[in-house]
Amino acid sequence: MSHYKAPLRDIRFVHDELLGFEAHYQSLPGCEDATPDMVNAILEEAARFSEEVLAPLNRVGDREGCTWTAEGVKTPTGFKQAYQQFVEGGWPSLAHDVAHGGQGLPESLAMATNELISQANWAWSMYPGLSHGAMNTLQAHGTPEQQHTYLEPLVSGRWTGTMCLTEAHCGSDLGLLRTRAEPQADGSYRIHGTKIFISAGEHDMAENIVHIVLARLPDAPEGTKGISLFIVPKILPKADGSLGERNALSCGSIEHKMGIHGNATCVMNFDGATGFLIGPANKGLNCMFTFMNVARLGTALQGLAHSEVAFQGAIRYARERLQMRSLSGPKAPDKPADPIIVHPDVRRMLLTIKAFAEGNRALLYYAAKLVDVVQRSTDEAQKQQADTLLAFITPIAKAFMTETGFESANHGVQVYGGHGYIAEWGMEQNVRDSRISCLYEGTTGIQALDLLGRKVLMSQGEVLKAFTKVVHKFCQAQEGKAELKEFVEPLAKLNKEWGDITLKIGMSAMQDREEVGAAAVDYLMYSGYVCLAYFWADMARVAHEQLAAGTSETAFYQAKLHTARFYYQRLLPRTQAHAQAMLAGASSLMALDEADFSLGY
Amino acid sequence: MSHYKAPLRDIRFVHDELLGFEAHYQSLPGCEDATPDMVNAILEEAARFSEEVLAPLNRVGDREGCTWTAEGVKTPTGFKQAYQQFVEGGWPSLAHDVAHGGQGLPESLAMATNELISQANWAWSMYPGLSHGAMNTLQAHGTPEQQHTYLEPLVSGRWTGTMCLTEAHCGSDLGLLRTRAEPQADGSYRIHGTKIFISAGEHDMAENIVHIVLARLPDAPEGTKGISLFIVPKILPKADGSLGERNALSCGSIEHKMGIHGNATCVMNFDGATGFLIGPANKGLNCMFTFMNVARLGTALQGLAHSEVAFQGAIRYARERLQMRSLSGPKAPDKPADPIIVHPDVRRMLLTIKAFAEGNRALLYYAAKLVDVVQRSTDEAQKQQADTLLAFITPIAKAFMTETGFESANHGVQVYGGHGYIAEWGMEQNVRDSRISCLYEGTTGIQALDLLGRKVLMSQGEVLKAFTKVVHKFCQAQEGKAELKEFVEPLAKLNKEWGDITLKIGMSAMQDREEVGAAAVDYLMYSGYVCLAYFWADMARVAHEQLAAGTSETAFYQAKLHTARFYYQRLLPRTQAHAQAMLAGASSLMALDEADFSLGY
Repeated sequence: MSHYKAPLRDIRFVHDELLGFEAHYQSLPGCEDATPDMVNAILEEAARFSEEVLAPLNRVGDREGCTWTAEGVKTPTGFKQAYQQFVEGGWPSLAHDVAHGGQGLPESLAMATNELISQANWAWSMYPGLSHGAMNTLQAHGTPEQQHTYLEPLVSGRWTGTMCLTEAHCGSDLGLLRTRAEPQADGSYRIHGTKIFISAGEHDMAENIVHIVLARLPDAPEGTKGISLFIVPKILPKADGSLGERNALSCGSIEHKMGIHGNATCVMNFDGATGFLIGPANKGLNCMFTFMNVARLGTALQGLAHSEVAFQGAIRYARERLQMRSLSGPKAPDKPADPIIVHPDVRRMLLTIKAFAEGNRALLYYAAKLVDVVQRSTDEAQKQQADTLLAFITPIAKAFMTETGFESANHGVQVYGGHGYIAEWGMEQNVRDSRISCLYEGTTGIQALDLLGRKVLMSQGEVLKAFTKVVHKFCQAQEGKAELKEFVEPLAKLNKEWGDITLKIGMSAMQDREEVGAAAVDYLMYSGYVCLAYFWADMARVAHEQLAAGTSETAFYQAKLHTARFYYQRLLPRTQAHAQAMLAGASSLMALDEADFSLGY
Repeated sequence: MSHYKAPLRDIRFVHDELLGFEAHYQSLPGCEDATPDMVNAILEEAARFSEEVLAPLNRVGDREGCTWTAEGVKTPTGFKQAYQQFVEGGWPSLAHDVAHGGQGLPESLAMATNELISQANWAWSMYPGLSHGAMNTLQAHGTPEQQHTYLEPLVSGRWTGTMCLTEAHCGSDLGLLRTRAEPQADGSYRIHGTKIFISAGEHDMAENIVHIVLARLPDAPEGTKGISLFIVPKILPKADGSLGERNALSCGSIEHKMGIHGNATCVMNFDGATGFLIGPANKGLNCMFTFMNVARLGTALQGLAHSEVAFQGAIRYARERLQMRSLSGPKAPDKPADPIIVHPDVRRMLLTIKAFAEGNRALLYYAAKLVDVVQRSTDEAQKQQADTLLAFITPIAKAFMTETGFESANHGVQVYGGHGYIAEWGMEQNVRDSRISCLYEGTTGIQALDLLGRKVLMSQGEVLKAFTKVVHKFCQAQEGKAELKEFVEPLAKLNKEWGDITLKIGMSAMQDREEVGAAAVDYLMYSGYVCLAYFWADMARVAHEQLAAGTSETAFYQAKLHTARFYYQRLLPRTQAHAQAMLAGASSLMALDEADFSLGY
């Protein structure tokens, strides 16, 4: 039985009280419909669907997994029916263009409904989730005909989509890819090659699957500058849009993997499959980068999901499980032992998960708000600033949220003791499911290089400054508020240190390019902790304001203050370990000869 | 196909060069037979058995798991045959008393052979491994008749043994246990109750299984002071030692768990099973504590195992996998891309695993040496000092080595990128198998309370001082050696800080007992990093000495120096995060009301 509850109160706290989404929606063209009433109604309906339909299928998916047959892949019991309900409910079209059958609501609202869906059942959520890459490609680069033929059924959810990037010998390094596209007389292409790790590449939930395949034209330049995008549908649509012939592509096998068993990870064979060029030839990677941010935020969401699931599981067990007496005297003298939530170390784990879940939620919705501005604002300066902030915050959100999501999932297991290792409680599944999030959509290392190398250092620190300025203004605005001093003072100090560290690394990187890679992951994690420090300080501000205004929810806002304090005292010190490690430089990493790593074996 | 290679060169480095085991063995009564030649011969044979017999069964065990039937539990293909070879090779009897059919070799030598066995196949190693608790109980507390009947077949390996502690409602808190023992007219007892999480509780590898069961006598005091130990064999031996009737006990089911699938984790039902009291009534827990250290070091070994497995897997892949060019220019210009070992962040992960594996190996053998002294020395003062050091080092070894083993296993996955998540490479199994090690045999939190509360603070810091004195003497002895300054200076500083922090926590704990639990895990991890700093400094000393003496293995010793440097520059800064977190005190953990942890759900 699933216990998942949608954290609606906390979403509203972040949405309405922290980030002012009401005014945000009213300020953006086409978002005026997203009134508080409508937002609430949508979130409540998404909560119901997630709690009642998706969450009960989460263990089923893990236990049954997917089944490969030559005819296709069978998804776990109930997955298809849930998808039908999802389509009937109009969920796939929420944030898509009205011109293609969408409801035209803001992307940030889809992010909020996706938060609930992803927490209830991550493996299931990937089937509709993976369509986004295909839809975004079609939206941005498709011809009107391509959009009419492929985008509308995707928006409605009748079809799903995938992005086919990875090959056996190339993951992070797409420049190595070999899949090739042969031009045909009719203007189409024949696609030859094998793609691996294609999530939702084949399944029985929708009537067609639209693959966006990265491949090389015959005359393409080598490396990343010779990659083009092709639309390669599982079933070729006829001129009237109805389903025609089966295309020459098939799922060769599905992977046996650590978790997300409910989602089919497919080896896809393209054996001269018919494909259609989308976007300009040889510019495929550039085309994809235009919506990379949204895709990465979709994986950041997974990090949040595993923190939330860990928290809900751990808090329930910590209240029920009786074990040992509190060191400061019995807290439940009528029971044979105290509930383990009385023990400080159990609280340390619970609060760590809680601080990550709530802090990361703020970070994610902050990013979602930026996405709205980038997509909708008519104010070029505002749009430009949002774009810069989004470029900065996205790799942090993706990597920091998934790393801390994995840490949270592990604390969830640890609170259960030995029981956490047993399947029936769901906590070990949460660890297994979460582990992939630090790997796909760009590993933590790749995100870190993107952040430090491609963004912060390439812009001479300007991209960082866009964000430290936000923090600086916040600190200035709160100056003199005694009740916020415990947060604002260390935050201001860290905000300055952040710039100083960046400068130092920038200087050493001018001497030795390896310094970038040597510092990158510590830099990213450091940045993540500072970002969350900003959001926790701001959440403390809101809590103080509400308490001063005489809120009736005293306990809720007090809990925010306690959690903020825990974050500052217990988690933020990790910045110092990261700072020292990255400032130590590259030499201790590079000194050892490749051959000398493992002598004597 | 398994690639496992026994790390014999590194074991010899620690054994012979760092810790001087040759002189150690010659100084202990009954260990004189353990000459370098004999030790080498035994280790080489254990290496062969581990590499050729056990390692190939590691994935088999994970994939097949164990199968429950009403007649008993079937272990994975090949497990039983490997066990037969193990018994025929005389491995179970290595370190046991000659009086009971053992070979009388030192415990530390068994630890070394177990290192190899555990790395090749942890799930398999638990079947013979779990016998140790039963054997130690019989050795320490059995009557001569009990020893004759039960200990000899266990020592030979014909039978295996278990320790039956946990019940569904009691894990860490054994005082709550309910299994009861009814006295019979013939002096035996009828045991009633259900035990859970009994590793190797039932299997098809040996002809009998001897359970040591914790249960309560009818008149027993409540809590931990009313627990007695009983010998409860699966099959009751006849007077002549041959197998008689089946006892009234059975395996009710086996758990579905995250990893160690090859080992059967059993629910054991005792339905009026015949048992025999061992040791004094109501003193069962005290009896068990006498050999708790060895059991915990056996789990510490698991931490080392997962680091070593992660390292061997990751280094192989990092050399083969071609992806992207080095930021400082192509390193393999003849290939389509550079091997990923050129990238600093991949090296960071590899070196992290390496520093943990080699550092933890030193820590473990240091502890094993103490075990020898405690078991064998005739010098009471030396024995007493070793006992104190062992009491201190054991919870650190158990928790720090398993936590860093789990971290290592995760880096192992990360080096593989998305491929790390796929079963065929074995890296995700390593993560799943390792996760249990931080839970059983006392969770990390329990070890931390044992270290800080029961040992360091209860002894007014004396137990800590026993070890900081060792470090202090080392630092003094190396003073003035310029080549060691980079290690000895920060080590001496940390060694002092360690004492200061302990004093501060001790002072606050006098005001508020919760401070102990609030600081414990950070204190343990801090202590682990300082311990490894000591061993890495000492390993650097050996390396410098060998280089100065004109060794022919220059690269091997240079690698030790590089890894020591990496450890000091990149991992040791974590102590500062732990120090700050624990000195922040308990208030941020205890302030939040239990009811307010999750408002709004």
